[in-house]
Amino acid sequence: MKNILLINGPNLNMLGTRETDKYGSVSLSDIIDNMNKLAENMDASLRSFQSNSEGEIVDFIHQNGINCDGIIINAGAYTHTSVAIRDAILCVNKPFVEVHISNIYKREEFRQFSYLSDIAVGIIAGFGENSYYLGLRALVDFLEKIS
Amino acid sequence: MKNILLINGPNLNMLGTRETDKYGSVSLSDIIDNMNKLAENMDASLRSFQSNSEGEIVDFIHQNGINCDGIIINAGAYTHTSVAIRDAILCVNKPFVEVHISNIYKREEFRQFSYLSDIAVGIIAGFGENSYYLGLRALVDFLEKIS
Amino acid sequence: MKNILLINGPNLNMLGTRETDKYGSVSLSDIIDNMNKLAENMDASLRSFQSNSEGEIVDFIHQNGINCDGIIINAGAYTHTSVAIRDAILCVNKPFVEVHISNIYKREEFRQFSYLSDIAVGIIAGFGENSYYLGLRALVDFLEKIS
Amino acid sequence: MKNILLINGPNLNMLGTRETDKYGSVSLSDIIDNMNKLAENMDASLRSFQSNSEGEIVDFIHQNGINCDGIIINAGAYTHTSVAIRDAILCVNKPFVEVHISNIYKREEFRQFSYLSDIAVGIIAGFGENSYYLGLRALVDFLEKIS
Amino acid sequence: MKNILLINGPNLNMLGTRETDKYGSVSLSDIIDNMNKLAENMDASLRSFQSNSEGEIVDFIHQNGINCDGIIINAGAYTHTSVAIRDAILCVNKPFVEVHISNIYKREEFRQFSYLSDIAVGIIAGFGENSYYLGLRALVDFLEKIS
Amino acid sequence: MKNILLINGPNLNMLGTRETDKYGSVSLSDIIDNMNKLAENMDASLRSFQSNSEGEIVDFIHQNGINCDGIIINAGAYTHTSVAIRDAILCVNKPFVEVHISNIYKREEFRQFSYLSDIAVGIIAGFGENSYYLGLRALVDFLEKIS
Amino acid sequence: MKNILLINGPNLNMLGTRETDKYGSVSLSDIIDNMNKLAENMDASLRSFQSNSEGEIVDFIHQNGINCDGIIINAGAYTHTSVAIRDAILCVNKPFVEVHISNIYKREEFRQFSYLSDIAVGIIAGFGENSYYLGLRALVDFLEKIS
Amino acid sequence: MKNILLINGPNLNMLGTRETDKYGSVSLSDIIDNMNKLAENMDASLRSFQSNSEGEIVDFIHQNGINCDGIIINAGAYTHTSVAIRDAILCVNKPFVEVHISNIYKREEFRQFSYLSDIAVGIIAGFGENSYYLGLRALVDFLEKIS
Amino acid sequence: MKNILLINGPNLNMLGTRETDKYGSVSLSDIIDNMNKLAENMDASLRSFQSNSEGEIVDFIHQNGINCDGIIINAGAYTHTSVAIRDAILCVNKPFVEVHISNIYKREEFRQFSYLSDIAVGIIAGFGENSYYLGLRALVDFLEKIS
Amino acid sequence: MKNILLINGPNLNMLGTRETDKYGSVSLSDIIDNMNKLAENMDASLRSFQSNSEGEIVDFIHQNGINCDGIIINAGAYTHTSVAIRDAILCVNKPFVEVHISNIYKREEFRQFSYLSDIAVGIIAGFGENSYYLGLRALVDFLEKIS
Amino acid sequence: MKNILLINGPNLNMLGTRETDKYGSVSLSDIIDNMNKLAENMDASLRSFQSNSEGEIVDFIHQNGINCDGIIINAGAYTHTSVAIRDAILCVNKPFVEVHISNIYKREEFRQFSYLSDIAVGIIAGFGENSYYLGLRALVDFLEKIS
Amino acid sequence: MKNILLINGPNLNMLGTRETDKYGSVSLSDIIDNMNKLAENMDASLRSFQSNSEGEIVDFIHQNGINCDGIIINAGAYTHTSVAIRDAILCVNKPFVEVHISNIYKREEFRQFSYLSDIAVGIIAGFGENSYYLGLRALVDFLEKIS
Repeated sequence: MKNILLINGPNLNMLGTRETDKYGSVSLSDIIDNMNKLAENMDASLRSFQSNSEGEIVDFIHQNGINCDGIIINAGAYTHTSVAIRDAILCVNKPFVEVHISNIYKREEFRQFSYLSDIAVGIIAGFGENSYYLGLRALVDFLEKIS
Repeated sequence: MKNILLINGPNLNMLGTRETDKYGSVSLSDIIDNMNKLAENMDASLRSFQSNSEGEIVDFIHQNGINCDGIIINAGAYTHTSVAIRDAILCVNKPFVEVHISNIYKREEFRQFSYLSDIAVGIIAGFGENSYYLGLRALVDFLEKIS
Repeated sequence: MKNILLINGPNLNMLGTRETDKYGSVSLSDIIDNMNKLAENMDASLRSFQSNSEGEIVDFIHQNGINCDGIIINAGAYTHTSVAIRDAILCVNKPFVEVHISNIYKREEFRQFSYLSDIAVGIIAGFGENSYYLGLRALVDFLEKIS
Repeated sequence: MKNILLINGPNLNMLGTRETDKYGSVSLSDIIDNMNKLAENMDASLRSFQSNSEGEIVDFIHQNGINCDGIIINAGAYTHTSVAIRDAILCVNKPFVEVHISNIYKREEFRQFSYLSDIAVGIIAGFGENSYYLGLRALVDFLEKIS
Repeated sequence: MKNILLINGPNLNMLGTRETDKYGSVSLSDIIDNMNKLAENMDASLRSFQSNSEGEIVDFIHQNGINCDGIIINAGAYTHTSVAIRDAILCVNKPFVEVHISNIYKREEFRQFSYLSDIAVGIIAGFGENSYYLGLRALVDFLEKIS
Repeated sequence: MKNILLINGPNLNMLGTRETDKYGSVSLSDIIDNMNKLAENMDASLRSFQSNSEGEIVDFIHQNGINCDGIIINAGAYTHTSVAIRDAILCVNKPFVEVHISNIYKREEFRQFSYLSDIAVGIIAGFGENSYYLGLRALVDFLEKIS
Repeated sequence: MKNILLINGPNLNMLGTRETDKYGSVSLSDIIDNMNKLAENMDASLRSFQSNSEGEIVDFIHQNGINCDGIIINAGAYTHTSVAIRDAILCVNKPFVEVHISNIYKREEFRQFSYLSDIAVGIIAGFGENSYYLGLRALVDFLEKIS
Repeated sequence: MKNILLINGPNLNMLGTRETDKYGSVSLSDIIDNMNKLAENMDASLRSFQSNSEGEIVDFIHQNGINCDGIIINAGAYTHTSVAIRDAILCVNKPFVEVHISNIYKREEFRQFSYLSDIAVGIIAGFGENSYYLGLRALVDFLEKIS
Repeated sequence: MKNILLINGPNLNMLGTRETDKYGSVSLSDIIDNMNKLAENMDASLRSFQSNSEGEIVDFIHQNGINCDGIIINAGAYTHTSVAIRDAILCVNKPFVEVHISNIYKREEFRQFSYLSDIAVGIIAGFGENSYYLGLRALVDFLEKIS
Repeated sequence: MKNILLINGPNLNMLGTRETDKYGSVSLSDIIDNMNKLAENMDASLRSFQSNSEGEIVDFIHQNGINCDGIIINAGAYTHTSVAIRDAILCVNKPFVEVHISNIYKREEFRQFSYLSDIAVGIIAGFGENSYYLGLRALVDFLEKIS
Repeated sequence: MKNILLINGPNLNMLGTRETDKYGSVSLSDIIDNMNKLAENMDASLRSFQSNSEGEIVDFIHQNGINCDGIIINAGAYTHTSVAIRDAILCVNKPFVEVHISNIYKREEFRQFSYLSDIAVGIIAGFGENSYYLGLRALVDFLEKIS
Repeated sequence: MKNILLINGPNLNMLGTRETDKYGSVSLSDIIDNMNKLAENMDASLRSFQSNSEGEIVDFIHQNGINCDGIIINAGAYTHTSVAIRDAILCVNKPFVEVHISNIYKREEFRQFSYLSDIAVGIIAGFGENSYYLGLRALVDFLEKIS
């Protein structure tokens, strides 16, 4: 059984209430419920975490990253500004998938650079909540292939 | 009666003790007192918050932004580096005024880009503590005009 | 039943023989077989096309794009150089998913700009052959949601 | 009593008739009337000037700037292109406030550079006609503080 | 006796476990022990702090910076992204030495800009744990020279 | 009958005497005569204006632009430097055609940016005096199509 | 009688069906019919060619360019990416006019560079199908002047 | 006898009153007197003109440039922003010397580009009023050499 | 005996007729004849191919590259625009020499970047037809050294 | 009597033989003779030095710069590449005039940046050998004014 | 016993006489004396060299670098301009420490790029003469660790 | 008989000992021997020179360039930094071939700009010592063609 971390960055706690034209009306807890069910089907276990604080996300990765098998991360705004989260993932040295709800390449220019993409296994962006589910499939497949 | 948030970012708690040639000798609590009096005169109520943590500012906006009428924000250093605070304000979707004590266009080049300006109602910079009082007038006027 | 086009650009005919450290040892026809099976399971039909010629890809999109429901495209090297393929997809005005076998954000700088990303539904990159299968799932889900 | 110059640059004579979605429907003479009243209340006198000619604005500053106490300027399009007006203000060496009706940071990229900002006391932008009234308050407060 | 702050930024708590090829196998507490001994020899006292949170580092500098004589800081990833920490040090206005374990000029381009270097006394980078010990010597020497 | 303004910017009064290898030997009054004849044939009336002063061109557009149907403008050097003329045309909000005698894309790099092109109906450059006649045809055709 | 080539690049075969808001509802064959009639009136003969393939356009220019008097080209997307077509025209060394249906200066930034403009006689952009007719007039006039 | 134009751009009428640390305390009429004496000694006649208006400078060059032998110009702020003055000098096609009172390479970055330098005979900058006298010598020498 | 491919890109079929000042008056078939003779002397066999189509060049490399020993390529205009040809050569993974008739570093800026140079054995440019003969020598020598 | 150094950089020993269209046919020793005569007239003494070696120029400045009153330097190619010569002049801290025979602003882009201009008294470029004589006048005048 | 080279670049022979506010009043021979004593204490021997000539520094490295254990270099101005010194160090392939007396990150932008940093063991800058002593300690420690 | 100069820049004296993976194990004197033999075969005479000093290379070119027929130069590191050597070659105005042992387009970005390429006859890079022999052939062929 694969142990997988699901990390959500700033403002993702507001999903479903926030700019629903860009991010849809599903809440983060709905997505986590769906992720848990899908994980169960794929014989994986999921540990979920959300924070608006860059430092707390770094802390979480340190404390939980070492014993996990892989990470799914939507770092939200920190995708574009945080070297610290990049470094935290490099510390624990686990494969991870970067997901985004919206198509970041359609948006402001500063959202088109990611401090995570070049060290990720892969990137999935633009499919709404489905980006998470595809990301979980992608990560589990990847872990199977390398194991 | 308009409910207005006054948000101060990192290092503004040090006002009056810090680089007084750039920022003057008035303390943040003096400014807040003056803002409260001015708000009262304009039939508005003010809720004030200061933090040095990007994540806490995001949290505060989530928790208090939805029921406010508008925001006055001096995001300090986070003006130039935080996509997360930009996104938090977009989440709660309220009109806001960006204020700065110093004239940021006179200073280091990295202080001349703001992640907030293009989504603000307007910007006021360079007038010392008066930037706050002008910002409050500007926001209350704006709220009256659109109501 | 959804009609879906699967378009592969230059050099993808060489999959399995080419730079196997970057692209894996599965051949394109293996992938197409798997895609057809997966499509069948999802009640979709797939029409597949590969060409090393920019002009032929434009022609194929013109001739088949108007009556399809959506497109999965790995434009290979043309991702980074072809405005003509971008325009061809804009002509037929159908939702499409951009897929890449390798993580293009890990590679040469010129591979990090795509003429397709900002008009795609979404992007999936880095998961080997799995990028295609995830792309098919993503597209079918998207088509169901908007229908 | 403070003597203050109010300078308006090109196209501001068209206020109220021009792109009213961006600039509102109040005319420049309405604004000047309001400014005169506000100045009177603040024990200041205002001399107002508008021109579409860069050279005439330079001339006006030379002829009137030396005996004034401060300047409020909305240089309009010349904000972004005129070194000559910058130099004219440097010649007379008086404190000035830069105002803009619209939020220039929301608009074309070339409107986001100002030849005036780094030598101004401060900048106020985005509050419609109110930018002028706030600018007058800001300038009078500044002049009192330094006198 | 000189009072010196030793500040370590994000991920440095993971020293010894993290990317040991880049950062070596010594832990942060080993380094702090060595620093304390070296400080004692140099008749200085050291107060050490590590946090993964930008805001907490700012808080620590505010609370302890005013009464210290100088600072040694390895801001880790925040070196490259934090204006807030720069401003916090400017607030307390104390001489400081910037240290890095690895040679940042050998690494990703984004690690080659520092928000601290131009306001530091000096910079020491690339000598592993020794960067800290050299930094302490450098700071104590500097403090002696200016006292 | 369409009322059309023909505006010529700085140095175009020198046509025929000036750099004849680049601009030909026909004078501006010859061109205006030809334009008037062509306009008559197309059942349009032309009002022509030339000035070397940016401010006078802005004034002319304000005074005559509101009652015209469209504008043909060769802004000469101001094409590349004047935001004020751009704004003047936006004020009167009329369709206009940008013409140039020489092929500006063959010349100095600073002549290859135009403050007018992105708000013009269209651009015609490089055909000598014929650029004007083509521009008149283009504008009249455009006005007919939208009327 | 002048022999003129009319070359249309990728996606222009889709005119009338494609993005009709940008390109209008007239088909390419309608335009060619009109061009033939206009050519006849101007005592010119037109040879028309369209291809979605960069290589075929190069071939066509080689085979037909040497015996023509001039070329009208709307290279579509290849305007912005093809050095090969530029070189093919340089090979046959004939005067040519660059035309565009839409105003390319209003669109994506990558459409604002043309590999053809600096070697063209002139450029006409933004007038819908009329760009072609104006281009034909411009070319015939040019050929007459130089003959 | 050589006929020479001396053209002074915006704000130079304020010489002697303006920023005397940068520009010295001599007035423009003092300089012109000195220039006239020096010209007399060199058997040249000088016609002097100053304007704050870009358009008037263009007009002056048109009206007087054709019959002069050469030009000395301190275009002031228009040095950095005026293509129109560049074009006016190209129109009359006379040799000219560019002079500056201050060393423009020591000042703001935007003062380090000149629209005139690449078409001037030569440039003299930084010698206070002496730049004019040196410029006159340089021009007369140049005219003698080519005559 | 070494099997060598000689690939010529767009417009090189026009050699001898095309811009003879830049490319000389020798035809491509003359060059190929000379290359065959030289190859024979060096105990190598040459297979020659020219196409104006990027896709056909990719096809040719796929079909013939795997069994060759090395490649000499003058990709013409595609040197500067084709990632697809770069990728095709990477697919077949054979040593190759990049040749150019003209000195591309003397020409337009866009000709100074090559998508091939950093993966070539070496580059030879500027020697007219001789670039080919030198390239053949260079490649045969290289193949001998590594065999 | 003022002691003045005249320093000539690389290739200036070739004056009169070298690219005479750009640099004229006068030799360096002719210029030095003229400079000596002119110096004598101005009651100054000149010490002249030429070297093609950056290091020797630095040595010369160290050995002779401290006891001179001012320097005239044409650093030739080292103008654009030598920080060492800049630093040598800063070491001896004497006023200097930068001269160039040709108008460097008309030439290759890399000749338009000078490591000397921002620390020079002034710059004179473009007047052939006369640049030296004007430079000597300028320097002597400057030295008189400050003495 | 470790053999260490100490190399000083241009203008460092002037230490103590030169810009003493930036570089202090200690002479280079004082520093070398101190370095020799410190080396002796650390059981190392030092060979010192200074030159203002890039070529002589290259020569010295060739002649002495091969038999040394490590290098301490303050390349002065050549830090920012010399690829030749970089290459010379690469030739002899010895570990080296880059030192600077002043904090180069506080100074002109061109001093903030070093051709040496990315191949150095580490960098020490800003501590006055102490940068040398710290550099010696750092190098000896490094050599011990790797031996 | 053609007189040819062979110039080698800094660090090339170390060939065979230096970074042998990049530059091979042949020494410079071996190469010169081979070059002499090859020259003899081609009825040319070779004069060879190597220096690590930019100034000495300039001197050599001045003294020997005027009477030679052509030059082969591997300027080593000075390729990327020396305007002086460029100017020296322009002085003597002789055809020259630029050679490099390694493929400079595979290496650090600063090695990809050459101050020599745009004025060379041609460039040969990447073929090890063979680059020299090919360069000699290329130069002799060129000299024959133009004689």
